Amino acid sequence: MLTVTAYAAASPTADILRTTIERRDVGPADVLIEIAYAGICHSDIHTVRGDWGAQTYPLTVGHEIAGVVSAVGSDVTKWAVGDRVGVGCMVNSCRDCVNCRAGLEQYCENGNVGTYAIVDRDGTVTQGGYSTHIVVDQDFVLRIPDAIDLAVAAPLLCAGITTYSPLKHWNASPGRKVAVVGMGGLGHLGVKLAVALGAEVTVLSQSLAKEADGRAFGAAHYYATSDAATFEKLKNEFDLILNTVSAEIDLAAYLKLLRLDGVLVNVGAPPEPLPVPVFALFGNRRSFAGSSIGGIRETQEMLDFCAEHGVVPETELIAADEITAAWQRVLNSDVRYRFVIDIATMA
Amino acid sequence: MLTVTAYAAASPTADILRTTIERRDVGPADVLIEIAYAGICHSDIHTVRGDWGAQTYPLTVGHEIAGVVSAVGSDVTKWAVGDRVGVGCMVNSCRDCVNCRAGLEQYCENGNVGTYAIVDRDGTVTQGGYSTHIVVDQDFVLRIPDAIDLAVAAPLLCAGITTYSPLKHWNASPGRKVAVVGMGGLGHLGVKLAVALGAEVTVLSQSLAKEADGRAFGAAHYYATSDAATFEKLKNEFDLILNTVSAEIDLAAYLKLLRLDGVLVNVGAPPEPLPVPVFALFGNRRSFAGSSIGGIRETQEMLDFCAEHGVVPETELIAADEITAAWQRVLNSDVRYRFVIDIATMA
Repeated sequence: MLTVTAYAAASPTADILRTTIERRDVGPADVLIEIAYAGICHSDIHTVRGDWGAQTYPLTVGHEIAGVVSAVGSDVTKWAVGDRVGVGCMVNSCRDCVNCRAGLEQYCENGNVGTYAIVDRDGTVTQGGYSTHIVVDQDFVLRIPDAIDLAVAAPLLCAGITTYSPLKHWNASPGRKVAVVGMGGLGHLGVKLAVALGAEVTVLSQSLAKEADGRAFGAAHYYATSDAATFEKLKNEFDLILNTVSAEIDLAAYLKLLRLDGVLVNVGAPPEPLPVPVFALFGNRRSFAGSSIGGIRETQEMLDFCAEHGVVPETELIAADEITAAWQRVLNSDVRYRFVIDIATMA
Repeated sequence: MLTVTAYAAASPTADILRTTIERRDVGPADVLIEIAYAGICHSDIHTVRGDWGAQTYPLTVGHEIAGVVSAVGSDVTKWAVGDRVGVGCMVNSCRDCVNCRAGLEQYCENGNVGTYAIVDRDGTVTQGGYSTHIVVDQDFVLRIPDAIDLAVAAPLLCAGITTYSPLKHWNASPGRKVAVVGMGGLGHLGVKLAVALGAEVTVLSQSLAKEADGRAFGAAHYYATSDAATFEKLKNEFDLILNTVSAEIDLAAYLKLLRLDGVLVNVGAPPEPLPVPVFALFGNRRSFAGSSIGGIRETQEMLDFCAEHGVVPETELIAADEITAAWQRVLNSDVRYRFVIDIATMA
């Protein structure tokens, strides 16, 4: 076992404090990564605070991980010491079900192994990236292209792929009109990615406070959802609406913005069921769908796409002892647009 | 104006009684149809009883209409006296919006003109098929193939196209697993059509009471949804679930039966919003969709398909003075599987 520095919560209500955790020894197929940066995802907070179910503590979270390979197991063929790499929301899957075999490990029928808070094959609970090192199977490691700084690469591993995958699946492309609901950590990347994919992008945000940013990210249109006129004006307008908001929204109103065969896809994860008015789905043969991160192959594709198109998240770098305060700012929607922990500050 | 015999409701709570109604004169593009049979659709009852909003009375409903052309307007090119024809849920649309131009008049952005209870272009309220005659624009008339008896053709005009269109759109075909929820007027046709399209069909019904029928219609599997084991056994099983039930169902349980990219499409129309658990949509990238009847072109395609494949509804023929009693049996789910009014009994 390797003992490494990490920041962990001792209980659902605890601050995120310096401690040590154990990592498994580097097995034949494993890669040891020295973590340089870890993004802060709203899921980290939901998980630790118990919003999505009870957890085992102490718990180290973080699934937006960027670093450098510092050791490899004897059977590792894909990676070498010094490689710039990332780890996202998964560190394993069954590899045998129909979805895994299709490269869609996020939909593993036997449940993928999340980067944190999941009982791993060896019976231990996985621990995430708010830590100096992590040991990961080589097949769940991503290459970070040289064109992307490690510090801004980290949020791509969750926020990036979570928005890229549905944009690709539902064909955000030239000639298609895409709306992004919410301009937070996910939303701002959704805008940049949809723009880079060639779609005509509209931001639907509570207010116009971030309009200048949205337009700088490439959005062609920006509307406040607090203004009822927005929903009149944009009826039957969009091919795709990417909803990044985890709070309940008035789905009936948003669904009516979809044109024929339009899809509203949720990547936001509200804990309670959302009431869906079936009559709003009848019009224009609309769909309400969900999408969960992306497979390993598609995550690599996304990183390469971001490198090619210069898409990077807007980040605010913090020290490890600022995590608890940063979480509070995430809860207050007071971040433009993603916190990244400088892991060097754990030394 | 033409004065014709019809059965109408004088109020939301009234019985359906013999009366006369007015039809417009046969215009240049109109067809006068002598109605032979009219199906009874649950929508007829919802509409008259005010479940979907207030109506104007007296009101004649019925949008599953089969009959024979008895006169044509001066500009009519498509139809001749004596033609065996049908009329479904629409009698007009704007013909100019993007959806109408695509032959998807059911999704007319300006609202299609329903066969009954809709204010038509001339300001009158449309009156449906529980009547001896109807005047319809030639473009909203369907040809009933010789291979299909008029009596059993009628339910195809709503129940048939309502199930055929989503089965086609979401690719019910050989190698695909399709579940049909509910074995009523829509469901039994959904089973027959999905079988004829080559899919492997499973019926999900409250009980096993209609299992023999379901298998006779071609279903390969039949499960009771009252048995919790059904939902365990069929996890990740289906490419498509066609939900014909208008009552609220436990969507979370049904969604989990969908495999990768599976779709649960509602053609049942519950008046209240259905609670959708977003986490169930995340798994397997599932969708919850709606579908509304079909366009005129596709309705003709469906009729021709039914003729070719011998698909006809199971019907129970009634006299006009039995309509009120038949409605009560529909409300009690006591019909195998569609009532058809013999319009000759109105004479």
